[in-house]
Amino acid sequence: MKIEVILTPAELPVLKQRDLRDATCVVFDVLRATSTFVTALRNGAKAIVPVSEISEALARRQKQPDVLLGGERNGVRIRATQSGGVDFDLGNSPREYAPEKVRGKTIVSTTTNGTRALRACAGAKTVLAAAFLNLTATAEFLRSLSPAPVVLVCAGTRENPALEDVLAAGALCEMLEVGSSRCDDRTAQRAVPTRFLDSAEIARRTYAQAKSDLAATVRTSENARRLLAIPELRDDVSFCLRQDAFPIVAKLEADGTIRCQAPQ
Amino acid sequence: MKIEVILTPAELPVLKQRDLRDATCVVFDVLRATSTFVTALRNGAKAIVPVSEISEALARRQKQPDVLLGGERNGVRIRATQSGGVDFDLGNSPREYAPEKVRGKTIVSTTTNGTRALRACAGAKTVLAAAFLNLTATAEFLRSLSPAPVVLVCAGTRENPALEDVLAAGALCEMLEVGSSRCDDRTAQRAVPTRFLDSAEIARRTYAQAKSDLAATVRTSENARRLLAIPELRDDVSFCLRQDAFPIVAKLEADGTIRCQAPQ
Repeated sequence: MKIEVILTPAELPVLKQRDLRDATCVVFDVLRATSTFVTALRNGAKAIVPVSEISEALARRQKQPDVLLGGERNGVRIRATQSGGVDFDLGNSPREYAPEKVRGKTIVSTTTNGTRALRACAGAKTVLAAAFLNLTATAEFLRSLSPAPVVLVCAGTRENPALEDVLAAGALCEMLEVGSSRCDDRTAQRAVPTRFLDSAEIARRTYAQAKSDLAATVRTSENARRLLAIPELRDDVSFCLRQDAFPIVAKLEADGTIRCQAPQ
Repeated sequence: MKIEVILTPAELPVLKQRDLRDATCVVFDVLRATSTFVTALRNGAKAIVPVSEISEALARRQKQPDVLLGGERNGVRIRATQSGGVDFDLGNSPREYAPEKVRGKTIVSTTTNGTRALRACAGAKTVLAAAFLNLTATAEFLRSLSPAPVVLVCAGTRENPALEDVLAAGALCEMLEVGSSRCDDRTAQRAVPTRFLDSAEIARRTYAQAKSDLAATVRTSENARRLLAIPELRDDVSFCLRQDAFPIVAKLEADGTIRCQAPQ
């Protein structure tokens, strides 16, 4: 299994041009888009529709009035003044996506970097959205596919890499390494040796160095510091670090929606 | 001192557009362009002229017949068949740039990623070329400038990050951290706190994880594996890892040449 990590969003235009027909891509936007998607699906949402712009979200609601609108600008829920008169139903805090709000619903979610990363993977055989919240479930799904190559895509922030995305990608690299304690005997027997490209070595070693105090490391990141400075959002940081809280796999379908993948 | 690392060459177009007038950029192309530049300067070369294309090197020689031509295609020295009849004087192995060959000479060197990275920094106040070979000298020079911001630029390979460049950038981050054992008391007193952006944290932690066996880590990198497979080039890998062998600073001047910086 050949594993590569897209460390920065600056690499996405090149990724989009590549032949990914045999590849499985896994998109990380840990603070907070993919953590929110995974939480919503775990709490019973039917599907997530990731879009870039507020206008795209509004257009989708026009066609499908029963969808919920989710997303943020500058950390907080989109208000009527920003969207031509429509208050969004949800922000981008995963803690808002409670079962009683999202069960059975389709949620249209505006996210800049998350959507850009997912769209750059459009030509891939399989595209997953992942976070610390569903890391082991995602690793097990990847091992069941034995895909080659695997491309872990860090959505980042604006044009820059985000430490927490690289840490999550690195943690997944560690899980996928043959011989890892996370890799059971049955899996190891059928596994081919893992080959890490340089980008994956960078992510894997960043995580290996940080994992003994992951929470403290993430708190030094630019996104975490921004969230920790906003009283109503600060608890999102620890929420998004609850590793393996939700044992689900979030898969981007051909229709552009993200849904829970049924167990293999 | 704010420190950022450009992890991949995909980020260079954005870097080129940025306002870098207050910035100091340090370019790493450890295997092997910047290691070769540093070696040549240490061995008495007057200047290095980095160019992208063979044709640029030939044009420079037409204007200035006494320059030496250096560079490689596919690891080996450029031959007459590749350059319209001109055998290059030197390849891209730092071990070729011995004092008796390079003393007093200007060397025009073709390097794809190294030149692209240096050109992306053209708007910066100061641009340095660095490698493991001159890491502490480079760190001391940066501390003497107390520049803000510092941008460490990993030249990478084609469009991809190169592990050895990120490791060298990470090692420099560690040296620049206030409180580092490498940072003497006199320096610490006048130092402002170091602020690492996420990209610098990624490089710093990758190095911290690898440093106890740096040589083994670098040998796993894509570039090192390529060089180790070519008998006449395999010793370049250990040569380029001789940390602080050459206590010089290599500075890109306004005329596009790289020269030894006189001590501050």
